[in-house]
Amino acid sequence: MRRIEFWFEFASTYSYLSAMRIEALAIRAGVELVWRPFLLGPIFAAQGWTTSPFNLQEAKGRYMWRDMARRAEARGLPFRRPAPFPQNSLTAARLALVGLDEGWGPAFVRAVYAAEFGEGLDISDEEVLTRLVGAAGGDPATLLRARSDAIKARLRAATEEAAARGVFGAPSFLVGDELFWGDDRLEEAVAWAVGRPADDA
Amino acid sequence: MRRIEFWFEFASTYSYLSAMRIEALAIRAGVELVWRPFLLGPIFAAQGWTTSPFNLQEAKGRYMWRDMARRAEARGLPFRRPAPFPQNSLTAARLALVGLDEGWGPAFVRAVYAAEFGEGLDISDEEVLTRLVGAAGGDPATLLRARSDAIKARLRAATEEAAARGVFGAPSFLVGDELFWGDDRLEEAVAWAVGRPADDA
Repeated sequence: MRRIEFWFEFASTYSYLSAMRIEALAIRAGVELVWRPFLLGPIFAAQGWTTSPFNLQEAKGRYMWRDMARRAEARGLPFRRPAPFPQNSLTAARLALVGLDEGWGPAFVRAVYAAEFGEGLDISDEEVLTRLVGAAGGDPATLLRARSDAIKARLRAATEEAAARGVFGAPSFLVGDELFWGDDRLEEAVAWAVGRPADDA
Repeated sequence: MRRIEFWFEFASTYSYLSAMRIEALAIRAGVELVWRPFLLGPIFAAQGWTTSPFNLQEAKGRYMWRDMARRAEARGLPFRRPAPFPQNSLTAARLALVGLDEGWGPAFVRAVYAAEFGEGLDISDEEVLTRLVGAAGGDPATLLRARSDAIKARLRAATEEAAARGVFGAPSFLVGDELFWGDDRLEEAVAWAVGRPADDA
C-alpha cells in the first residue's frame, strides 16, 4: 500500500508551501494521500515553549520570513505575513476534520492557507472561515459541527498521535513509521512511499 | 563579484553534508568560495541553550540522526554518530583558520568532517588533529600556532561576525547580506550568487 500521511498545522508557514502542491505530487506518483490536521501548540508546550520558535528565536524568525518570501516567489505563490503570528488555528483544524469526512477537506485546507499566507487574513475569524468552507464546497453551518465533542476529541487524539509517532514540527510526512520533516523533504517522502513497499515485497 | 561565504561549525552534522560538496558546486558555477569557520556554542548560549538543540529536543534529535543517515546514504557518504555529540570543535576551528591562510584549509575541513562523521573519531583529540593536518598537507606543528592569541582572537571575531550578520545555525551561506540556512539551501545560495550580481548590474 503506497500511502503518505501529510501532518499539517494551519499556523505553520512552511506547511503552506507543502499544502499547495502535495496533492498534485501524490497523484503523479500514484501514492494515496492522507491529510492529517493537528496542533503544534501542545507539542511546543511540552518543550516549555509558549509560542512559535520563530518568535522565541529572533534571528531564526527573521530568516524564516525572508526564506518564505523567496520560496513563495520561486513557486509563484502570493505571500503575506499574517498578524498575529502564529494564528489561532484551532477552529480551522476542527473544520478540516469535518471537511475531510465530507469530501471538501483538501480544497478547504488550500483555501485556509491561501487566505492566511496569501492574503494575510485572520483564520480564527468566523466570517473568514464560513466563507472558506462555502468556497471549498461545504455547508457554511459546518462551524457548528466543528464544535461537537466528537470533533474536538478527534483533533486532540490526532495531536497526541502525532507526538507519539515522533512529530515535532510541521509540515511532517509519515510513510509508515518513516518520518520526514519540512517542505524540503516532501519529494523525498513521496519517493520513499513509491519505492519502499516495492523493496519490501 | 560572485562570491559565497560558507559558514560552518565542525560539530554540526548537516555542515558535513555541505562541506563535502560545496567546493565542486562553486567551481562548476564559477563562484568564489570563502570558507568561514565559526563556533555555534556562543550563539546557542545567547539563546540560553547549554548544548545542541538536537540534544535539548529529544524528538528532533532522534529525527536528525535518521535524516542524516538517509541523506548520507543517498550521497554515498559514510556516516557514524560520534560520541560525544556535539564534539568539542574549538581546536579544529582554530586549525582551519591557520590552514585557510596556508592553502591546506579546504582539504583539512573535509578531512575533519570525514573523520568525525564518517569514522566517528573524536575531533578534539590532538593525535587525530595532528594526523588530519598532515593528511591535508599542513605542518603537524600547526597545533602550536593554532593556540596563538591572534588565531584565538580571529575565531572569536568570526563568531561575533556570524551572529551580527544573522547566522543562527550551521551550515549557513551568505551571498552579500542574503542568508541561506541549511544544507538544503546550498544550491539556492549558489544560484543566488550567480544570478543576483548580474541582475543588479
